Amino acid sequence: MAIIVQKFGGTSVADAEKIRQATKRVIRAVKDGFSVVVVASARGKQTDQLVKDALELNPNPPKREMDQLLSTGEQQSVSLFAMALDASGYDAISFTGSQIRMMTDSVHTKARIVSVDAGRIHRQLDQGKIVIVAGFQGIDEHDNITTLGRGGSDTTAVALAASVGAEQCEIYTDVDGIYTSDPRIFKNAVKLNQISYDEMLEMASLGAGVMHPRAIEFGKKYDITIHVRSSSEDKEGTLITHEVPQMEGVVVSGATIQRDMAKISLVGVDNIPGNAAKVFAHLAKAKVVVNDIVQTEISPEKANLSFMIEISDLAAAREAMDKIKKDVNCQNVFVREDIAEVSVIGVGMRSHYGVAEKMFGALAEAKVNIDSITTSEIRISCAVDEDQAEKALEAVCSAFQLDKPADLRNA
Amino acid sequence: MAIIVQKFGGTSVADAEKIRQATKRVIRAVKDGFSVVVVASARGKQTDQLVKDALELNPNPPKREMDQLLSTGEQQSVSLFAMALDASGYDAISFTGSQIRMMTDSVHTKARIVSVDAGRIHRQLDQGKIVIVAGFQGIDEHDNITTLGRGGSDTTAVALAASVGAEQCEIYTDVDGIYTSDPRIFKNAVKLNQISYDEMLEMASLGAGVMHPRAIEFGKKYDITIHVRSSSEDKEGTLITHEVPQMEGVVVSGATIQRDMAKISLVGVDNIPGNAAKVFAHLAKAKVVVNDIVQTEISPEKANLSFMIEISDLAAAREAMDKIKKDVNCQNVFVREDIAEVSVIGVGMRSHYGVAEKMFGALAEAKVNIDSITTSEIRISCAVDEDQAEKALEAVCSAFQLDKPADLRNA
Repeated sequence: MAIIVQKFGGTSVADAEKIRQATKRVIRAVKDGFSVVVVASARGKQTDQLVKDALELNPNPPKREMDQLLSTGEQQSVSLFAMALDASGYDAISFTGSQIRMMTDSVHTKARIVSVDAGRIHRQLDQGKIVIVAGFQGIDEHDNITTLGRGGSDTTAVALAASVGAEQCEIYTDVDGIYTSDPRIFKNAVKLNQISYDEMLEMASLGAGVMHPRAIEFGKKYDITIHVRSSSEDKEGTLITHEVPQMEGVVVSGATIQRDMAKISLVGVDNIPGNAAKVFAHLAKAKVVVNDIVQTEISPEKANLSFMIEISDLAAAREAMDKIKKDVNCQNVFVREDIAEVSVIGVGMRSHYGVAEKMFGALAEAKVNIDSITTSEIRISCAVDEDQAEKALEAVCSAFQLDKPADLRNA
Repeated sequence: MAIIVQKFGGTSVADAEKIRQATKRVIRAVKDGFSVVVVASARGKQTDQLVKDALELNPNPPKREMDQLLSTGEQQSVSLFAMALDASGYDAISFTGSQIRMMTDSVHTKARIVSVDAGRIHRQLDQGKIVIVAGFQGIDEHDNITTLGRGGSDTTAVALAASVGAEQCEIYTDVDGIYTSDPRIFKNAVKLNQISYDEMLEMASLGAGVMHPRAIEFGKKYDITIHVRSSSEDKEGTLITHEVPQMEGVVVSGATIQRDMAKISLVGVDNIPGNAAKVFAHLAKAKVVVNDIVQTEISPEKANLSFMIEISDLAAAREAMDKIKKDVNCQNVFVREDIAEVSVIGVGMRSHYGVAEKMFGALAEAKVNIDSITTSEIRISCAVDEDQAEKALEAVCSAFQLDKPADLRNA
């Protein structure tokens, strides 16, 4: 029998009524002839409450104990979910990450999945049971409970889909799919019917935070079609899938905005081997995540080096800069805090000319000044003034007709 | 290094402040040179809330899922406890029942402990860590989470004390020890310095519900001294220990009252082999717990059979009686609902005369009518009118001078 994995997020299991609603999705899939594996997150604000309880006792709680604590949220959800299914006359069994041997590394609070024992799940499915698995959690080789970090339940769902050989992985959420852009800013954004893993990865890491990047990576690696859809409305969402030929016909699939960035520029660095490595070694030591590194030669002996960071890392980065200035000879350091990044994404870029030109033209027309530009094979990003970021996104969305489904756009 | 087990009940870990208070007991034991294993229950009303959440979804939740749900309460307590110790600069590690392989049978919601893996605990103690173990829970051979039923954390604590070879097991609770009688009724009851396992077992099963009988059985079996003491006041409590010679000098250690009983009498049962077995087979099938069975011959052919049950089992017992009447020839069935049982307990009874006489005399003087009498080697119980029960207990307590420590009583 074909297997389907259905994942319900925290808002979809927030209370008894929501859980009952979610079980209806499961029951329909059973009636459609599927064996169902459910992955559930912690109920609503449970995790926040537990974090609060922890901080009341310890401002800096040991991460192992934090995982031990937080994992109870999902354990409660899955047992309640199983009880709700039982009340509707369906045989269900809930499992913690430990019980299905969801093995991870030992990096508490952001562990990575190493392997899953699909055997126990298969045995239950074979007995006609619905299997409910706690998302977000696993265990390491010493039976310590680990958690996968923010969005971890998505990763659990896709990893399980891969390991049990599911036909599809449905992610039920409070939005009804992936949009061409953020509808709160570009009002006319439209829902995408499908998007490739690579495009979704770029969008996810650029702040269109519907899905966790790790989950998409798993989907890509094991070719699991991920269906992002609404838990409250009964309609098709967006399929995240491998690249299909018709995707190339679409030049730009979506546009994103990433706020709260800072740009750090080192001016007049001695252009000798090893200097760049020293800079980023200091930043890595300070646990600062660095993006969009650009180096340009300004003379045979000197270069400028700039990169973007999240504003929340700025304090740590400033401390690191003090060490960096001592370590590499550099004339000046500039920090720009009021910066955002607007990006367009599309696998079609690989085979289409003029995408950059159209983007820069749209921004020029909207009188948005571009601070700097970075690109990947399927993405173009422009750093702009934070104040101008929304205007910039709207201009770009209009230029690429992101208010229309792909097949209705003009060439 | 000597090991001590300290168990904190739900009220002793109810909130951050209570947890911090509890950690002080642990820290003092560490400073006194002990390796400490802590057993914690779920915080305050957590378990009640989870039960409510479950019943909202399913009036009759599957027991396996109930255990999966309820066990999260203790898991939260132990991780928070470990965090609180960490905040005070003490290295602590929390474990679930699963993580220390607290193996039980598969009787969900009232499982019995089969074995514990002391190895993992010893390894942590050897590294200088304080080990915090979730009470009340275990796992069966298929990794299903089980719970030990009401008072299960006491049992966890004593079982752990036995398996790690602890010197003592301290049970911190909201009373400061075991009293000669219920101080709410007999105002002058005094705290016992020590009591034997057998005496405590009789008291526990007779409604002096400070300790769970299973925990005391474990203590007796493995000769673990159990110290019941106050979590809020810093003074010695009561030691539950093996019998020592001086205990025999005390005729009566305590007196108890057990309310909400019903007495069922079968009058004129055919006195043939197998009839009594049939009666209790029907009651067992109806899951009715039966106490104080008395059979008396009234003629060569006929006998009366009476026994006590808890009033909560009465409906089930009445149904069973209908079947029993058809199955054994019996002239009449009487049910008495307004009944309570007053008991005196003491290992000294074995070697002292006149205990029964003194008890009956005290009741007669207080004008309490005795419905029936049952005895064990170390206990005498009188069934009395529920309305007269408190007066009866006070009379008995006075007669046996239970307002005085044992060494100050008159011979």
